[in-house]
Amino acid sequence: MNAPSSLEALIEALRCLPGVGPKSAQRMAYHLLQRDKPGALQLAQALGGAVERIHHCAKCNNFSEEEVCAMCRSSHRDASLLCVVEMPADLLMMEQAQCYGGMYFVLMGRLSPLDGIGARELPLERLLARAQEQLCEVILATNFTVEGDATAHYLATLLSAQGIKVSRIARGLPVGGELEHVDSGTLAQAVLERRAVSA
Amino acid sequence: MNAPSSLEALIEALRCLPGVGPKSAQRMAYHLLQRDKPGALQLAQALGGAVERIHHCAKCNNFSEEEVCAMCRSSHRDASLLCVVEMPADLLMMEQAQCYGGMYFVLMGRLSPLDGIGARELPLERLLARAQEQLCEVILATNFTVEGDATAHYLATLLSAQGIKVSRIARGLPVGGELEHVDSGTLAQAVLERRAVSA
Repeated sequence: MNAPSSLEALIEALRCLPGVGPKSAQRMAYHLLQRDKPGALQLAQALGGAVERIHHCAKCNNFSEEEVCAMCRSSHRDASLLCVVEMPADLLMMEQAQCYGGMYFVLMGRLSPLDGIGARELPLERLLARAQEQLCEVILATNFTVEGDATAHYLATLLSAQGIKVSRIARGLPVGGELEHVDSGTLAQAVLERRAVSA
Repeated sequence: MNAPSSLEALIEALRCLPGVGPKSAQRMAYHLLQRDKPGALQLAQALGGAVERIHHCAKCNNFSEEEVCAMCRSSHRDASLLCVVEMPADLLMMEQAQCYGGMYFVLMGRLSPLDGIGARELPLERLLARAQEQLCEVILATNFTVEGDATAHYLATLLSAQGIKVSRIARGLPVGGELEHVDSGTLAQAVLERRAVSA
């Protein structure tokens, strides 16, 4: 209505954030201008700084300020294993689980035809080149969603054709999971993918 | 974990937005850096511009780029009425309802002792000064929440003591509301505040 134009511009600009609609954007703008002007300026600076300095690591494709990120440069990690994840957040979860000491490759997405993301939109040539560098095994750790599964299937075909050993992280009941409360799809998969037990 | 520092700084800075926790901030940062760098730069610019240019209107206390906003300068509005609202969004709703042609005063908050907002944190002296400028009536349009009601009560006492006529917008069933589906508190208030009907 009669909102001043730089306020309108701010509300419009806030809508570029994922999950922020017109009402939330308005609330955010009012909050910043009324209660947190230093925060707004700091955010402006952080946005500029991050856009300017953050690129993709030449090896793992994760966000990095350097040509090759610290993790890829580390000599303490097992260079014979490559774990493929969809997003940087997945990599952080893997690291928090402290179950894996190899290298990573971050797809920065997944096959998602509905969103216009096909094989050409993912950095598959770089993944292939990376996988051919004397690696023993590529571990696919994409999500267990329809799209993540499709991506894993596609990558497995692609990498196997090059004679690379490919595996997929296990699907099943979560740790502490009870049969009574688990969804039937997970239970069915857990039965299908059961493992032999050695006595 | 091993996130580059300007990414960390961006995630931290995004948390100044209301309703944004660590996970959302991370998702927003990844989205901006991966899919919308122009949007991020535009947001940075809009933040800086808004913080620099937007102040409070000297008359109505709403956000304004000028000393006195366009609405307060307008000669088409009824200068004998002053409507007090909590936030700019409330003013916009009033304007959208097209039911009111007078002036406004935006409190930019409400009495909320739990959040440390008492009478001293609200611009009550400016409201009082504004209300004493040959106005006929002050209409209190704060929300019908506990805090909004308390604010209205406080303002009514304050303004009445100066001999100013004060009213409160009506509470009752919404337009199109059915007794069967309305909450009992609203129904009880609607009965208590019933109006005489002239035949």
